[in-house]
Amino acid sequence: MRDAYHEELDSIGDSLVEMARLVGSAIGRATAAILDADLKLAESVIEGDEKVDDLQHDLEARAIALLARQQPVATDLRIVVTSLRMSADLERSGDLAQHVAKLTRLRYPERAIPQDLHATILEMGQLAQRLMAKAAEVIITKDVDLAMQLEQDDDAMDLLHRTLFQHLMDERWKHGIETAVDVTLLGRYYERYADHAVAVAKRVVYLVTGEHADELQADIQPDIQPVSGVEGA
Amino acid sequence: MRDAYHEELDSIGDSLVEMARLVGSAIGRATAAILDADLKLAESVIEGDEKVDDLQHDLEARAIALLARQQPVATDLRIVVTSLRMSADLERSGDLAQHVAKLTRLRYPERAIPQDLHATILEMGQLAQRLMAKAAEVIITKDVDLAMQLEQDDDAMDLLHRTLFQHLMDERWKHGIETAVDVTLLGRYYERYADHAVAVAKRVVYLVTGEHADELQADIQPDIQPVSGVEGA
Repeated sequence: MRDAYHEELDSIGDSLVEMARLVGSAIGRATAAILDADLKLAESVIEGDEKVDDLQHDLEARAIALLARQQPVATDLRIVVTSLRMSADLERSGDLAQHVAKLTRLRYPERAIPQDLHATILEMGQLAQRLMAKAAEVIITKDVDLAMQLEQDDDAMDLLHRTLFQHLMDERWKHGIETAVDVTLLGRYYERYADHAVAVAKRVVYLVTGEHADELQADIQPDIQPVSGVEGA
Repeated sequence: MRDAYHEELDSIGDSLVEMARLVGSAIGRATAAILDADLKLAESVIEGDEKVDDLQHDLEARAIALLARQQPVATDLRIVVTSLRMSADLERSGDLAQHVAKLTRLRYPERAIPQDLHATILEMGQLAQRLMAKAAEVIITKDVDLAMQLEQDDDAMDLLHRTLFQHLMDERWKHGIETAVDVTLLGRYYERYADHAVAVAKRVVYLVTGEHADELQADIQPDIQPVSGVEGA
């Protein structure tokens, strides 16, 4: 049987998984909302973010209480500090899903996304959701190999982001400046969302191995040159 | 005389101030670089960000060592945990300054910013630098009133951001899609930079008062409606 202390530590992990589940669902629904110009769905994503924020505040309070009461050292201390960081990543991912939903609302009843970009945005949304589902699994299983996979999935997100930019930069672009601005921001929201999912997984790697994920896989990183001013870092 | 423990705590504060100083200088130089298409200056910002990252890693290691060795409680514990968060905000601000510099490099020898937007971008850069200088002062002085001022300065940043969007949405916009994309991203980099400076100040307010800054000034927040899909939160 586990003692109260380790139960508290586990419950922090449970909250992280719950946050990941919520923001994963949020980005999926936000994507559906923007593609279908579904205002009701968009509103539900916007309102739902409060729950994520509440979970983060609660998690932080519990983590700090645990530090004060139990004064963990070594691995346990690292788990608590890293959990605080992961919760910040997840909270921010929720904000980004909310931004997608708010763009839907801003353009309603128009559709923010022209038909010829639907497939790319849909893929970005689905990939973002898969990345977050994997991040949740990494939190649960502490599977370093799976965590490493996320980095490669993130490369797929970069490629989708470039596809989006190729559309924008195509001289046949006929959707005007406002839509170009919307698509630019939208691309950035998905890219940043993916970055945060990857960051969560990397922090688990750090917890398990004591090494930063970048060091472990420095040699398998593809060398992609930027084609636009977009920076994911 | 202070004991070794409080000296360590102070030295963490010193590192935060040093990080704020570096990223404040970085956004000022990045702004000059993008306005003048100054590649050398842009490169110096890009390379200089490593120093910020190093400071953050070092600060984190010292904060965690302090938690493990000294097991602070109450206020001291809050200071250490909050310092970790502030260092994450500052590190991210450095990334955003670096993004501005990278956009300069990407478009070089062209200028990324058309002449008619120079004044607005210059103002955004100067305001960002002032915000960070104030954030550094708030870290040093723990002046809650000054921290509250940052929130109002951030409203000025929002207004500048809207000015930028009005240019973009003006039907006389003649700079094409690529520049529209660049300007959209640039606007977002400055806005997010400002958000992080404000976040640093808010965290100090929380440390000093035990209350989140939002609660203290809920009644003085202006109610500005969005004019574009840009989300600062």
